[in-house]
Amino acid sequence: MYVTYLECPRCKMRLPEKVLANTCSQCDAPLLVRYDLATIGAVCDPDSFSNRSWDMWRYRELLPLPRKVEPVTLGEGMTPILNVSALGNELGFSRLFMKDEGLCPTGTFKARGASAGVSMAKLLGVEHIALPTAGNAGGAWAAYGARAGIGVTVIMPKDAPVQTIQECVAYGARTYLVDGLISDAGRIVGEACSRLGWFNASTLKEPYRIEGKKTMGLELCEQFQWRSPSVIVYPTGGGVGLIGIWKALQELRSLGWLRGSMPRLVAVQAAGCAPIVEAYHQEKEESTFWSGAETIAAGLRVPKASGDFLVLSALRTSRGTAVSVSDEDIAVKQALASRWGCNISLEGAAGLAAIAQLADEGWLYDDDEVLLINTGSGLKNPGGPLPELPVLDIDASL
Amino acid sequence: MYVTYLECPRCKMRLPEKVLANTCSQCDAPLLVRYDLATIGAVCDPDSFSNRSWDMWRYRELLPLPRKVEPVTLGEGMTPILNVSALGNELGFSRLFMKDEGLCPTGTFKARGASAGVSMAKLLGVEHIALPTAGNAGGAWAAYGARAGIGVTVIMPKDAPVQTIQECVAYGARTYLVDGLISDAGRIVGEACSRLGWFNASTLKEPYRIEGKKTMGLELCEQFQWRSPSVIVYPTGGGVGLIGIWKALQELRSLGWLRGSMPRLVAVQAAGCAPIVEAYHQEKEESTFWSGAETIAAGLRVPKASGDFLVLSALRTSRGTAVSVSDEDIAVKQALASRWGCNISLEGAAGLAAIAQLADEGWLYDDDEVLLINTGSGLKNPGGPLPELPVLDIDASL
Repeated sequence: MYVTYLECPRCKMRLPEKVLANTCSQCDAPLLVRYDLATIGAVCDPDSFSNRSWDMWRYRELLPLPRKVEPVTLGEGMTPILNVSALGNELGFSRLFMKDEGLCPTGTFKARGASAGVSMAKLLGVEHIALPTAGNAGGAWAAYGARAGIGVTVIMPKDAPVQTIQECVAYGARTYLVDGLISDAGRIVGEACSRLGWFNASTLKEPYRIEGKKTMGLELCEQFQWRSPSVIVYPTGGGVGLIGIWKALQELRSLGWLRGSMPRLVAVQAAGCAPIVEAYHQEKEESTFWSGAETIAAGLRVPKASGDFLVLSALRTSRGTAVSVSDEDIAVKQALASRWGCNISLEGAAGLAAIAQLADEGWLYDDDEVLLINTGSGLKNPGGPLPELPVLDIDASL
Repeated sequence: MYVTYLECPRCKMRLPEKVLANTCSQCDAPLLVRYDLATIGAVCDPDSFSNRSWDMWRYRELLPLPRKVEPVTLGEGMTPILNVSALGNELGFSRLFMKDEGLCPTGTFKARGASAGVSMAKLLGVEHIALPTAGNAGGAWAAYGARAGIGVTVIMPKDAPVQTIQECVAYGARTYLVDGLISDAGRIVGEACSRLGWFNASTLKEPYRIEGKKTMGLELCEQFQWRSPSVIVYPTGGGVGLIGIWKALQELRSLGWLRGSMPRLVAVQAAGCAPIVEAYHQEKEESTFWSGAETIAAGLRVPKASGDFLVLSALRTSRGTAVSVSDEDIAVKQALASRWGCNISLEGAAGLAAIAQLADEGWLYDDDEVLLINTGSGLKNPGGPLPELPVLDIDASL
């Protein structure tokens, strides 16, 4: 394995690898895993991956787990990229592709972070993990914890999607609801971890979740024949996937494996909770805690992301942008996607709403290729009550 | 493309390919697609597939769609095979693997059949499809129909799983409920198709659904390095997947690509609807319509499968067997799988119950490798009411 050290992206402090670490001990920023890219480039190349296992662990050289250690896997990754130009036409932009993370275990992209995070936690001797969640991360970490035989405690807002609560319980996680937001849950988790010796696996409180999410970036480049689409649209709650994709692209470029240009990154948030959009347009380096956060897209209800400065930096460096969309538009776009055969998450639907806005504003160029990351399956956001349907007798005819 | 003709497996009647066909015009049996395997073997080999798209269409030479025609795809296939030995230990058999079809679009293996069936229907000019369904096939064909721009009418039992009803409606299918079973829905569909000129896409009423399901067999052989596990356990409603997997294995063996032995196939049904199990143990060539069919595993509630004779023949030729399991055991095994991180369908859980039975009876050998086909995601069988969970105040501690 080719990890050299863990690095604080803010103060540049370095930690040795193979240490159970949370955040930077000096400035509390998230830690990033750094690799010996020169050696990786000498031992493998883009063709090395095609005959490997059908999951994200095929990019083993660019992941933190030592080669001889079995990952904690449920088959996450290698999700398809669909040409959705017909759907795009309805949004005003036809060169549209969608990477469907709904086909990950537990139904969302959270599986990637959990697979990497739980694999490393197991390797490093963790016996109990705790995390706050808006819903889907809890389900994912509960599943991978169960698979690894590691205890998991999850705290989630009491109005989190019912199915995500059900799955945490089914996977055997100790599941608590909180009469508040994910930020409140996070505070309770932090205190409990300090007191009880549990490992805090909150978003960006440990360095490996990003590495799992990074594989979305590795995959999409491989799927585009080691190029990148010109625009990547990412529904942004905690923003780990956006940070991870950007890290993947930088690593691939350093390796010389990525041909062509880097993409412009677009962060999408809900109008009822848009701290990163606000900070981006106010040209701030960090976001401000968003009071009264509210949106139907539970995964976007993150009032203050601890990696906000990394998200904002990636948006600026890539010459991207940040867009907020209304809940009404999210619901409309989710229904529209279904009419084209795609059962996407509310967060993914927010991305569609943003693409329509960007097309309308002329921010997209005619020759752009736009890739939406659909972060989860619509099966985790079941629709409301059934419409009245005709019930036939057994001797009926249509 | 290498299709030679369509063949009736009962009376051996042949039909030219590129004809919109339902069943055999002489004996009404399902039609099978036959290929020029000698030419396929000359133009490609097992290594040909590794650099292709991440879906079932990578096995293009062994599929009916002409090479230059774009398939109607949502990224179905290339599902993982997990080593679930810890779960197997609890069932009394540790060399257990699971192919997780829950990671297909629409959450079940039905996506494969729908992708192949809708692709061919579109190619052959179909404008409206109708089918009966226990639930999941309806969702899948509705999704692929929406993606293809083909109209879909679905008729399903009024007590089909709510989520499958919701998804048919969301995909824009004309959705009807029937106060009866899938067999009743099938009769109404058949009559409507004759009268209205719709294409009847009922199970085994058209030849291409099998070809889609066949890709499970192609994939599992590739995943086992072009060998087969010694036992394949298949939850059997209509049995199309079992027929398809057996067809795949035979084609691969004819091509000389499959090393080692053929597997023993095991059909699993619910005790409340076990026509194939009954026919197997009574050594009959066909099953008898099962009156009063009832089980919590909706996909297994098929009182008489039109391909029963093909399923029974595959079970016998492979020296396999057929097992029925109780609803109570299905529910227990679904919960057990969750405790090991696997959120499987009720039908998949029936397979686990069968494996425990077979281990207990000594039908499995110590050196067997058993592969369960988990046909769908547990997300499509949401659990019952939530247990009472603790609700914390925002200033609480654990």
